[in-house]
Amino acid sequence: MNYKTNFNFENLISNSIPDLIPPKEHPKPKFDFGVAYPDPESIPISELISSLSLGLEEEGKDLAYYPHPDGYPPLREFISSKLSKERGIPVSPDQMILTDGSLESIYMLSEVLIDPDDVVLTEKYCYSGTLRIFKRFSANIIGVDCDDSGIIPSDLEKKIKEIQRVGKKIKLLYTIPTFQNPLGFCVPESRRIDILSITQQFQIPILEDDCYVDLNYEKNNYPSIYSLDSSKSVIYVGSFSKIIGPGTRMGYIVAPDTILEKLRIVKSGGGVNQFAAIAIHRYSNTNLNRDINSRNDILKIKRDAMLKALTQYFKFDEEAKWSHPEGGLYIWLELNPKFDLLKLLPVAQKHNLSYQPGTMFHPDSKIGKNCARLCFGYNQPQQIDQGIKLLSELITANPDID
Amino acid sequence: MNYKTNFNFENLISNSIPDLIPPKEHPKPKFDFGVAYPDPESIPISELISSLSLGLEEEGKDLAYYPHPDGYPPLREFISSKLSKERGIPVSPDQMILTDGSLESIYMLSEVLIDPDDVVLTEKYCYSGTLRIFKRFSANIIGVDCDDSGIIPSDLEKKIKEIQRVGKKIKLLYTIPTFQNPLGFCVPESRRIDILSITQQFQIPILEDDCYVDLNYEKNNYPSIYSLDSSKSVIYVGSFSKIIGPGTRMGYIVAPDTILEKLRIVKSGGGVNQFAAIAIHRYSNTNLNRDINSRNDILKIKRDAMLKALTQYFKFDEEAKWSHPEGGLYIWLELNPKFDLLKLLPVAQKHNLSYQPGTMFHPDSKIGKNCARLCFGYNQPQQIDQGIKLLSELITANPDID
Repeated sequence: MNYKTNFNFENLISNSIPDLIPPKEHPKPKFDFGVAYPDPESIPISELISSLSLGLEEEGKDLAYYPHPDGYPPLREFISSKLSKERGIPVSPDQMILTDGSLESIYMLSEVLIDPDDVVLTEKYCYSGTLRIFKRFSANIIGVDCDDSGIIPSDLEKKIKEIQRVGKKIKLLYTIPTFQNPLGFCVPESRRIDILSITQQFQIPILEDDCYVDLNYEKNNYPSIYSLDSSKSVIYVGSFSKIIGPGTRMGYIVAPDTILEKLRIVKSGGGVNQFAAIAIHRYSNTNLNRDINSRNDILKIKRDAMLKALTQYFKFDEEAKWSHPEGGLYIWLELNPKFDLLKLLPVAQKHNLSYQPGTMFHPDSKIGKNCARLCFGYNQPQQIDQGIKLLSELITANPDID
Repeated sequence: MNYKTNFNFENLISNSIPDLIPPKEHPKPKFDFGVAYPDPESIPISELISSLSLGLEEEGKDLAYYPHPDGYPPLREFISSKLSKERGIPVSPDQMILTDGSLESIYMLSEVLIDPDDVVLTEKYCYSGTLRIFKRFSANIIGVDCDDSGIIPSDLEKKIKEIQRVGKKIKLLYTIPTFQNPLGFCVPESRRIDILSITQQFQIPILEDDCYVDLNYEKNNYPSIYSLDSSKSVIYVGSFSKIIGPGTRMGYIVAPDTILEKLRIVKSGGGVNQFAAIAIHRYSNTNLNRDINSRNDILKIKRDAMLKALTQYFKFDEEAKWSHPEGGLYIWLELNPKFDLLKLLPVAQKHNLSYQPGTMFHPDSKIGKNCARLCFGYNQPQQIDQGIKLLSELITANPDID
């Protein structure tokens, strides 16, 4: 007989899967300060197509083969040379794995390290995608206080001691030291050294997320934390999402062999896509650096347009403060605590404007209602001006949210 | 101070990560009967390039956006229409998620369902990639006996009762009913119904892996198990790896909403690669069905070449038996139990010939030494003949392995 009642899957789900809201497709409003887009006009479409055509003509039959489990070797060679030249990270192509964006790197490392209730340390406000992954593995996420120069070493040390006193295991400090998402700061070299000496002392590895490093508008140079560490306690992730486009889904993770071996066990879908790997490899060897410079010129203009509009429509005082990032894609807006930008969001969306409220970036999702991350990558400078004006008007016109 | 002693990660690794050997890059010997390649000559490189050029010109800016978390919607529409027309599976594009090959689908579903020591049922010999994933989640894998028509219903029922008697939870029956890997059988409709009525009775969901269905050389039609089930207990995975090329890393999973919601929580790298999705979508809407037919003509010739060579160089009797598959990529060779094809493998590799020993496909990795999976997709017919001749000579010349 053929059963007609719908099968009940509920009691078959593993206990290790927490109740989380899955990621949704992003809306695309007119004034989109919400999502982390790089400038959509400067995606190098025709260069990518010709790179791919060239590459596939040379290597096309390789599509019949399963990709190398660690990802297309020539692209790993390119990354190895880029990291060694630009980030003081002298790794061979064998010491990294290519992944679907840096998100998969972070997911895989979390899968390898985190047991339920293990502690991971992050900046007080931290990239929401990473928070979601840590929550998926039921980590106990503790945010460390930050100032304009990043994580405050004394608070880091204090929190570590408190956590270790109650017997919890700290598995990781996750940090974006360069052009942080969402706060926009860049950690000076001396502070990087201070942070490192604390994590070394307490035997805590660092996961350094460096995916914004190339979006550098002031051309100041900040060494990677990885390059400052002689104890090999730093795991490093990077990505092509921000310098080519997130749709390419191409990131990488550099780690010691002990960790790489485990990462290979949890890599879920075989090696990364050969289409994307071949296109990025050929494009990177020819045009990437030139294009990064011209794209940064555009993004710098957009950043300046947003900073100017904020100065014009908000007053930088105790009612409103914002970050002045040297790079990356985000300005962090902090209003007087009486304002609630989480409540304002649906109103703003009705006016075709979006941003991400501060609560999205806080480990407990409650703190940060008076804050918002504003991404300046998507809109043109004139629209940025109009959008920030609209945001300021909406805040003024909605007294019930203050 | 900067610590110079290498950091010790060992005691930070999660307990949930078993000791497994990570996947290796595949060697490419002259006679490669080992890896599951479709015919490398018929990879439609130029069609894929022109499809991608066209698609990227139309949608290029979308690379700046994050892909839809479930994967490129137009490709899901194509799959939805293909499944409904060809497999009797009337699903909307919202009832599936695109993944990095079908491997990621299987990984994600295992992550959602399997707690350590949960039982999963498979065919007695089962695709090694799936076995590796089940082992990664520390499942207790039980193989069900098969004959030339697939899983033997009476053994399925007997094993289920035994397992449930000792109080273990069965989370899944994994099966490739159509052109099975590695055994090559195709389950007749009546047996599909018998299997389904048993799993329904014992409330066990089926994971139907249908990734070989389009490699159908005899044009006999076998309904999907999904289409025979009115209780919605079947989860279905498919792939473009075998009909376009594994390097495209494009698979999909069709599941009820309860499961889809959890799959979205464990999808590790964001939506699948837009490059591959756009190329496959445009190509599939124009040339796929025509190309499948011509590719199947080539693969049929290769299958027949291997069957002919086996008949010529082995005798089909109690010393050697092999399957006669109607589709897929593999012939299963079973020698008299006194032969050890696992021991012979390094010898064969020295002679530039490879195959996969039967033990790779058995849940406990011990049974199947006298068996091998021979893939006929890679070599040309003449090479297949030479390779099978060589294999027969190597078996004869190495009396120490019998």
